[in-house]
Amino acid sequence: MRPAGAKTVGLVGATGLVGQTILAVLRERKFPVAALRLWASRRSRGRVVRFAGKPYAVQALQRPDFAGCDIVFFAGTEGEKGASVRYAAAAVRAGAVVIDNGSDFRMEPAVPLVVPEVNPCDVYWHKGIIANPNCSTIQMAVALAPVYREFGLRRIVVATYQSVSGSGRRGPEILGRETRAGRYQAKDAIFPRRIAGNVIPQISNFGELGYTGEEWKMVKETQKIFHDSAIEINATTVRVPVAAGHSESVYFETKQPATARGIEKLLQRASGIVYSKDSFHTPLEIAGKDGVFVSRLRPDPVNPKAFVMWVVADNLRKGAATNAVQIAEQLL
Amino acid sequence: MRPAGAKTVGLVGATGLVGQTILAVLRERKFPVAALRLWASRRSRGRVVRFAGKPYAVQALQRPDFAGCDIVFFAGTEGEKGASVRYAAAAVRAGAVVIDNGSDFRMEPAVPLVVPEVNPCDVYWHKGIIANPNCSTIQMAVALAPVYREFGLRRIVVATYQSVSGSGRRGPEILGRETRAGRYQAKDAIFPRRIAGNVIPQISNFGELGYTGEEWKMVKETQKIFHDSAIEINATTVRVPVAAGHSESVYFETKQPATARGIEKLLQRASGIVYSKDSFHTPLEIAGKDGVFVSRLRPDPVNPKAFVMWVVADNLRKGAATNAVQIAEQLL
Repeated sequence: MRPAGAKTVGLVGATGLVGQTILAVLRERKFPVAALRLWASRRSRGRVVRFAGKPYAVQALQRPDFAGCDIVFFAGTEGEKGASVRYAAAAVRAGAVVIDNGSDFRMEPAVPLVVPEVNPCDVYWHKGIIANPNCSTIQMAVALAPVYREFGLRRIVVATYQSVSGSGRRGPEILGRETRAGRYQAKDAIFPRRIAGNVIPQISNFGELGYTGEEWKMVKETQKIFHDSAIEINATTVRVPVAAGHSESVYFETKQPATARGIEKLLQRASGIVYSKDSFHTPLEIAGKDGVFVSRLRPDPVNPKAFVMWVVADNLRKGAATNAVQIAEQLL
Repeated sequence: MRPAGAKTVGLVGATGLVGQTILAVLRERKFPVAALRLWASRRSRGRVVRFAGKPYAVQALQRPDFAGCDIVFFAGTEGEKGASVRYAAAAVRAGAVVIDNGSDFRMEPAVPLVVPEVNPCDVYWHKGIIANPNCSTIQMAVALAPVYREFGLRRIVVATYQSVSGSGRRGPEILGRETRAGRYQAKDAIFPRRIAGNVIPQISNFGELGYTGEEWKMVKETQKIFHDSAIEINATTVRVPVAAGHSESVYFETKQPATARGIEKLLQRASGIVYSKDSFHTPLEIAGKDGVFVSRLRPDPVNPKAFVMWVVADNLRKGAATNAVQIAEQLL
C-alpha cells in the first residue's frame, strides 16, 4: 500500500557518486519513497541497485519515460553536461519536479537555486526545475547565512581546499592510482596536473578576468542564493589530494558592527551548522557526515568588521546529495 | 691557498633538511667557502658530510668553538627552539655573523629580518645576528615587494597550502608512513591530525585572538620586513599533504590605483620572481628550484584596488636555505 504523501522518485545518474549518495540519504532521512526509478548512462545499463532492501534495475538513459514521477533528481557530477539539458524538460512535461545537481540551470532567472538553511522559500516559485548549488558554494552559504541575516555582508574572500570526489568517481580512483604509481598519467587526465602529493589551483576552465568557472560559481551562485548582487566575492578554488570533503578559509566583512562572540552565538544555534570553538575540523574526520562544520572563527587583527573562519563539509553530502534531498523534503 | 674574500663558514644543524639544503645552495651559488665547520645534535655526532668533494666530520653541539668563523648559519627547522638561543651569542663573541633560520630572534628590534629582494639594506645594521624570516612569509614578501614599492599595500588576506617539509625531516617521513598505513599513528605525532589524505588548519600553537603562531608570523614578520606596521594582514595557514613546496592564495589591496597589467609588468621584471601569465605553478613541479613562482594574477571583480594571485616556492630553498645564503652573499 502506498503511504499517503509518498512519492514516486526518479534518479538520473543512479550509479555515480552523487546518485549513490542521494539513495543513501533518501533512506537515512526516511524520505517517503513510494516507487523508485533509476537511470544511468549506457555503461551502467543492466546494473541492479538495492534500495531499502529491494533490487532496482538501472535503465539506460535513452528516451527515458518519466510518466508517474513526482520528483526526478539529476545527479550528474559537476561539469558533466548533458543529461538535465536534454531530459529535464521531458520530466517537467511528465509532471515531475526536477532537482538538478548540475550547473546548467543554476543561473537561469526562472530557476530557483536553493540551500534550505538559507533560502527555503525559493523552493515555492519554481516552474518545474530547482537547481542545487555548487558544492563549494553550499557550505559557504550555510556558514555565512546567520551572519548575513544579522549583520549583512559587504565582502567575502575565500580560498578553497577541494577534494577529488568533486570530480566524480574517477577523482578518488586517479588519486589512488597516482599515489601508488608516484607519477602523473596523462591518459587518466581529469586533473590538469598530478594531484597526488600536489595542489592544483585550477578547477574547471579559465574564464572572465582569469577566474575559473568554479570561482565564478562561488561569486554568482552565492549572490543569487542571498538575493544580493552587492556582496563582493573573491574566490580562489584549489584541488587538494583529499578523497572527500571540501575545506574553505572564509574571510568576510560585515556591513554592521559585529563581534566574534556575537557571530559565535549565531553559529552555535544555526540550523545545519556544527560549530567548534576550541578545536577544528578536517575533511578526513567529517567525511560521510551531513553538517557544515565551522571552526577557527576569529576577528581580524585590525578591521573591526572583518572575521575569518574555517568551513568544512562533505561535498557529496551537504555539498550535493543531502542538499538535494532537503530540497525535496521542502517540496513535500 | 685561501682565495681572497673567502670565508670560514659554520653551520649548526648540518644534518637536517635545511642544513643539507644550505650546503647544496652554497655549492650551487659558488659561495666562497674557505673552510667549513659543521655541528649537529648528539644523534648526528660522528656523521661525515661531503661538501665540494671533501668529507667533513659533524661535531656534536656541545660547547661549540666558533673561533675563526666568519659566518655561522643556524639551520634549526621552524619551531625547534634552542640552538641559536643557546649558542648564537658565543658565535657573535667569536667574531662571526650569525644568520639564524629559526624564529627566536626575528622580532627582536636589534635584529634585522631580511629578504634580499625586499630589504637588502637591513643587512648592514646588524649587531651580529641577522634573522631569516619564516618560509611562508618570505615567498609572500618577494611576490608583494614590487607591488608595495609602486602602489603601496593597504590589506593582505592570505590562505596557505604548506608542505610537510616545513616540519623538518620527520614531516615527509610521517606523510609517507601514513600514506602506506592509511592511518594516523599518534606515537608519530608531529601533526595534530593525520596529514595523509587530509588538510590541517593548524601550524604551531594557537595564540592571541585565535590565530596560530604561524599566522602571526606572517602578519608581524611581513610588517617588519616592509617597515610598515600599517599593512593590515589576515592569515590562515594550513598544512597539506605535499612533500615540499608551499603555495599561497594572496589577496591584496593597493593604496594607489593599479591595474593587473601594471602589476604584471612589475612581476615580469622583478628579481627572484618567475611569473606565468597563461599557466600556473604547482608545488610538485617547482620543488628544488630557487624562485618565487607567481601566477593567476587577476583583478578583483569589483574592487578596483584589489587583486589576487597564486604564489608557490620551495620552502626549503627560497623559504629557508637560499634566502639565508643570499643574506650571506649580501654581507660579502
